[in-house]
Amino acid sequence: MPHTTAAPLERLRSGDTVHGMWMMSSSADLARISSSLGYDYVCLDMQHGLARAEHIMPLSDAVRAGGDAMVVARVPDNRFTEIGMLADAGVDAIIVPLVSSAAEARAAAEALDYPPRGRRSWGPTNALMLGHDPAPERAGAPLLFVMIENTAGLSEVAEICRVDGVDGVYIGPSDLALSLGSLPGPEEPATTEAIATILATAQEAGVIPGIHCGTGEEAAARRAQGFRFITSSSDIGAARAAYAADLAEAAGG
Amino acid sequence: MPHTTAAPLERLRSGDTVHGMWMMSSSADLARISSSLGYDYVCLDMQHGLARAEHIMPLSDAVRAGGDAMVVARVPDNRFTEIGMLADAGVDAIIVPLVSSAAEARAAAEALDYPPRGRRSWGPTNALMLGHDPAPERAGAPLLFVMIENTAGLSEVAEICRVDGVDGVYIGPSDLALSLGSLPGPEEPATTEAIATILATAQEAGVIPGIHCGTGEEAAARRAQGFRFITSSSDIGAARAAYAADLAEAAGG
Amino acid sequence: MPHTTAAPLERLRSGDTVHGMWMMSSSADLARISSSLGYDYVCLDMQHGLARAEHIMPLSDAVRAGGDAMVVARVPDNRFTEIGMLADAGVDAIIVPLVSSAAEARAAAEALDYPPRGRRSWGPTNALMLGHDPAPERAGAPLLFVMIENTAGLSEVAEICRVDGVDGVYIGPSDLALSLGSLPGPEEPATTEAIATILATAQEAGVIPGIHCGTGEEAAARRAQGFRFITSSSDIGAARAAYAADLAEAAGG
Amino acid sequence: MPHTTAAPLERLRSGDTVHGMWMMSSSADLARISSSLGYDYVCLDMQHGLARAEHIMPLSDAVRAGGDAMVVARVPDNRFTEIGMLADAGVDAIIVPLVSSAAEARAAAEALDYPPRGRRSWGPTNALMLGHDPAPERAGAPLLFVMIENTAGLSEVAEICRVDGVDGVYIGPSDLALSLGSLPGPEEPATTEAIATILATAQEAGVIPGIHCGTGEEAAARRAQGFRFITSSSDIGAARAAYAADLAEAAGG
Amino acid sequence: MPHTTAAPLERLRSGDTVHGMWMMSSSADLARISSSLGYDYVCLDMQHGLARAEHIMPLSDAVRAGGDAMVVARVPDNRFTEIGMLADAGVDAIIVPLVSSAAEARAAAEALDYPPRGRRSWGPTNALMLGHDPAPERAGAPLLFVMIENTAGLSEVAEICRVDGVDGVYIGPSDLALSLGSLPGPEEPATTEAIATILATAQEAGVIPGIHCGTGEEAAARRAQGFRFITSSSDIGAARAAYAADLAEAAGG
Amino acid sequence: MPHTTAAPLERLRSGDTVHGMWMMSSSADLARISSSLGYDYVCLDMQHGLARAEHIMPLSDAVRAGGDAMVVARVPDNRFTEIGMLADAGVDAIIVPLVSSAAEARAAAEALDYPPRGRRSWGPTNALMLGHDPAPERAGAPLLFVMIENTAGLSEVAEICRVDGVDGVYIGPSDLALSLGSLPGPEEPATTEAIATILATAQEAGVIPGIHCGTGEEAAARRAQGFRFITSSSDIGAARAAYAADLAEAAGG
Ligand SMILES: [Mg+2]
Ligand SMILES: [Mg+2]
Ligand SMILES: [Mg+2]
Ligand SMILES: [Mg+2]
Ligand SMILES: [Mg+2]
Ligand SMILES: [Mg+2]
Repeated sequence: MPHTTAAPLERLRSGDTVHGMWMMSSSADLARISSSLGYDYVCLDMQHGLARAEHIMPLSDAVRAGGDAMVVARVPDNRFTEIGMLADAGVDAIIVPLVSSAAEARAAAEALDYPPRGRRSWGPTNALMLGHDPAPERAGAPLLFVMIENTAGLSEVAEICRVDGVDGVYIGPSDLALSLGSLPGPEEPATTEAIATILATAQEAGVIPGIHCGTGEEAAARRAQGFRFITSSSDIGAARAAYAADLAEAAGG
Repeated sequence: MPHTTAAPLERLRSGDTVHGMWMMSSSADLARISSSLGYDYVCLDMQHGLARAEHIMPLSDAVRAGGDAMVVARVPDNRFTEIGMLADAGVDAIIVPLVSSAAEARAAAEALDYPPRGRRSWGPTNALMLGHDPAPERAGAPLLFVMIENTAGLSEVAEICRVDGVDGVYIGPSDLALSLGSLPGPEEPATTEAIATILATAQEAGVIPGIHCGTGEEAAARRAQGFRFITSSSDIGAARAAYAADLAEAAGG
Repeated sequence: MPHTTAAPLERLRSGDTVHGMWMMSSSADLARISSSLGYDYVCLDMQHGLARAEHIMPLSDAVRAGGDAMVVARVPDNRFTEIGMLADAGVDAIIVPLVSSAAEARAAAEALDYPPRGRRSWGPTNALMLGHDPAPERAGAPLLFVMIENTAGLSEVAEICRVDGVDGVYIGPSDLALSLGSLPGPEEPATTEAIATILATAQEAGVIPGIHCGTGEEAAARRAQGFRFITSSSDIGAARAAYAADLAEAAGG
Repeated sequence: MPHTTAAPLERLRSGDTVHGMWMMSSSADLARISSSLGYDYVCLDMQHGLARAEHIMPLSDAVRAGGDAMVVARVPDNRFTEIGMLADAGVDAIIVPLVSSAAEARAAAEALDYPPRGRRSWGPTNALMLGHDPAPERAGAPLLFVMIENTAGLSEVAEICRVDGVDGVYIGPSDLALSLGSLPGPEEPATTEAIATILATAQEAGVIPGIHCGTGEEAAARRAQGFRFITSSSDIGAARAAYAADLAEAAGG
Repeated sequence: MPHTTAAPLERLRSGDTVHGMWMMSSSADLARISSSLGYDYVCLDMQHGLARAEHIMPLSDAVRAGGDAMVVARVPDNRFTEIGMLADAGVDAIIVPLVSSAAEARAAAEALDYPPRGRRSWGPTNALMLGHDPAPERAGAPLLFVMIENTAGLSEVAEICRVDGVDGVYIGPSDLALSLGSLPGPEEPATTEAIATILATAQEAGVIPGIHCGTGEEAAARRAQGFRFITSSSDIGAARAAYAADLAEAAGG
Repeated sequence: MPHTTAAPLERLRSGDTVHGMWMMSSSADLARISSSLGYDYVCLDMQHGLARAEHIMPLSDAVRAGGDAMVVARVPDNRFTEIGMLADAGVDAIIVPLVSSAAEARAAAEALDYPPRGRRSWGPTNALMLGHDPAPERAGAPLLFVMIENTAGLSEVAEICRVDGVDGVYIGPSDLALSLGSLPGPEEPATTEAIATILATAQEAGVIPGIHCGTGEEAAARRAQGFRFITSSSDIGAARAAYAADLAEAAGG
């Protein structure tokens, strides 16, 4: 029986909250570890992280060999070809950055769906490799998350949430803060308000509200607010902090 | 729940026959495909194939991401350090080539077991990565197959089968034929007789009789003889034959 | 004397039919095998396959080390920079997907030719490495195939075939079927008719008619229809079918 | 103390001239060698060279392990996402090819700067890995060079040099020659004149004049003309010439 | 000026204590991070870790690009050729596992020194690449640590410490415990006593006492005992613990 | 028709002299360039160079794609398994370092030949991939060169040259000098004399005399002395010298 990521995906669909690890490195070892720990998803960040196109298959393999985490990927840009490539590679969900309008959200959704509903080109490589049925109807796989992280996207968030094929929104607090005139780091009121607006709008529209956090503590707070797709750590951020603590304790005094 | 290869391993232990694919290439894509097809094991050949030490983790990941096949590896040589490396990497079974004596079989077994039963050095990397319990007692994992493929090994096969820690024998018919004075290819009587001897000895000793085949037809015949760990194809051999057939049909006339 | 692909290219130019293997994987071993078997071309699929930019040189080397096959690459998208990259890497032919108009075909052709005829930027890396004369006039190398695989392209196929620098058309039957409202798989009449139209138009315009097939049998039929650049297999498709057959034979009865 | 490239960068800022090696290959060994020799910068050419996105970190590491050279990268195209990726990866300077207008130069500059001055998206991976302060103000890092190498760019060179965030211009003589109607190779008068115009314009605007050369001799002549950021060799060009000379001497007489 | 690791090495030679990170993964990102944090050394574990021969150069580059840490490597086995390979690659120190006698220590030392003092074969690749003086006298570089981790080595530890060319001993507590009849984990009295013996013997002989620890707390305790070359963390162990804590905090309550 | 290295090999067999490039790096680009220049062989140095086992196939492909050079490899050590691996990979010649006796030479020869003449294990991967006839008789392929580079080998050179299966000797002047009590660099009389002895002995025994040189000038002198298999350059040595000269010329005056 081929490996399945059904468990986290089903929980997500049934209204549960899922927790994820954010991969900035391209280390298959860290991907395998993360999945084995019980993270519900591991996100390969092709925009700011070091995962390149050629790492998608080995990192997906490592996630699936390690455990049951969903393979998520953030595409570098809202481009038809790169989105299709990730779908062909068999990822379970795609996050599209910097979506500023419903038209842009629609373009992303069309890149994931075959005609007549979308424009995706035929070539489902992973499904062909594994002998899965690559039905021309997309049937909701992979999930599509669009990032709301600038003032343009914020002002059209309701329309974006209503775009057919959008399964969730994912908030990038740092870009959102920059777009609102503040800085990454401690959250200022305008950012807090924007995040609340996006959360409420997604909940109302029935799409999954997701958000990027930097620590487990921050993630727990977001969970309490109602977010359901929550990244609590980055691989290199958490590793760096742990190594620094060990060195300080070892050498410290 | 981390991926498990329990099914094929349990079937093997319960007396069933298992079928495997032999990887000569280092292609993770072919490993993933093979596992997804339902092969019970995929063997990474580090002796004659192109899998090198650095391919063990990505190929293991691909096998486990594709399906439930056991990850088997043939070590390039009966060396303490290389055998330990494969065990640390978490393979499910190890095949040691060219075992010529019970002493050599014992050396292989000791490389897989911690003191006091063996000499393995501590560092179970894969178990540490995945949070598995790396119990210092080996508890029969990975399985150890020793290859009987020369006249020396043939003459000590009974003693080899009785070595503590040897789980099975694996026959290499080509090397065996060369050692008996004939050539790889159609089997000569001396080779046939040697194979029958090894099979009977293994069955009597209660270890798993395994053998290397080149086609599904040959594998079916070995299964009928009583072999229980049977390689039916090599990735590049079967692919080459298929490509040649397609080209002949396309261009042929 | 450096390796040359003259033979298949010359045959193609003299009106003969050539047969190709389609690489979806990134395995140099499969590329080498394919070329050694006598395929006239091996196509590295960067759109739906797993060949990424960094694989172009090692896969090209493998094709050329294995035999005389032409190195063909399908670019992921009709982009100026990516087309130029493939030309700089020294591939023998480029296939551009999803060409919908003569203007798009012209853009592809201009990306392959230096000013004043085109817009290609100077930097012929492979020619510089090998000491070849990188004449600023393109002189027809690499060959350019444009894919006709949607209704827009179909309606402009005659104009597309007349674009200067277009050497051939390549039909993608699956995308064409989707665009015509049917599904990949058994060919429906609208698709059959469209394919016939494209073939006749290409023949009339004197450009090479090419088509994508999935089996040798299908390729033979296309050859009989008059196609001259015919892909008969995909590396992973043919391998998967062969492995499945071996397993069934081994375990089956 | 983390490795610093302060020396060449400071010299460049204080008005000195710096010399660079142009990497067409993706060999970390050649990058390490070049940096160890005292080159002030090593440029990874992602447009025409064989450095792909995944090579940026290993090649940057090799440059920094070998010596004090700045890591420069030529982005394949003037694209927002790819420019941001290089900035995130921590390169010291970015060269953007084929800049044809002040608007295009402005787009490149905006891709390097966070809001409100630019549009860069937050995710400074290398700074996060190394614990550097990733201040949201760009503060002039990485340096931005725009290539003037076609007649459109030439006619707007003064406006381009005044674009906020442009630190220098870099001339590509071969593309410039092609655009002016001649060929790469011996410089024709129109190209000579264009180069002189660009140099003078840059000097007047107070931005760094840079140029691509093929030999040390050519570089020395450009230095005498007033250029201050000068590439004297390409890794594969200089290696090829040296190997040819050795072979001729060995076998020749 | 080429990168130098003088600082930690000088501190080590002047009697100071140095702290290290143990790499089990092959991730250059984690190597770069570790060095940037101020670890005095980063050890590439080729015995139980996933660093293979081909990773030595990229991981060394990453360590040196990230900071001033010494590059240390544990060779998989006490083999002449593999030890020479690491010396040729320019590592700053080599750790040899499972040294059981003064004769074995002598063999390791001879593999690092050219005739007449040793047997090393000429080919100092890294020095040739960087233009360093590859003096035929070894002059103490790289440092040689021999591991005392079994009862045989323990019983000859005084003789081992007196072997010319041995710069330090490195204790592997897990293998030592296994050899003494106990298990990895909480230290039993026999192991405590053996560690004290080795420490005292090394101090008396004037060689550096080193030891492997799993946490910063354990490392601080070893420092207090007088160890001077102390590994406080493993990359994957510390990362795994940190990721688990984040997930527990995020999902937990 | 698969690629053939017949030309240089035939010339070598007919008594001609061949010239080679020595690869210390693992750069396929440099391998391709070297072969395209007309070198008769390109040697992948697995002992002191950076070519590891996994680079053998891509570097062999690059040599064969670039031109007609023979693929030669220096094995890291005189080990049965590693020699067989190179033969399986299809290299055209193997150089074994540090051969000290006729017994050692015999062991190397036996590792290359199948029973009954040798002990090689069956698994000719490259031949199987390419469809070549892997005849169980070795028939002189690959060629075997044994290195005479220490006093022990020197004293048995006549016996070594008479070992069945030894096709040539290859002198390593640096190790030979060290073994004779002098240093790499300018040749001292004892080394000169030893080289002359080896040359004369090889000529008398009818095996190919080969030698390692560092420059084309040195190679020409060795050619004049009668050597017939002569390495004139190393990839990184010649590149480094060329880059240094370019920088000096650019920055120098
Ligand atoms: Mg963002
Ligand atoms: Mg065998
Ligand atoms: Mg298509
Ligand atoms: Mg240019
Ligand atoms: Mg140990
Ligand atoms: Mg030598």
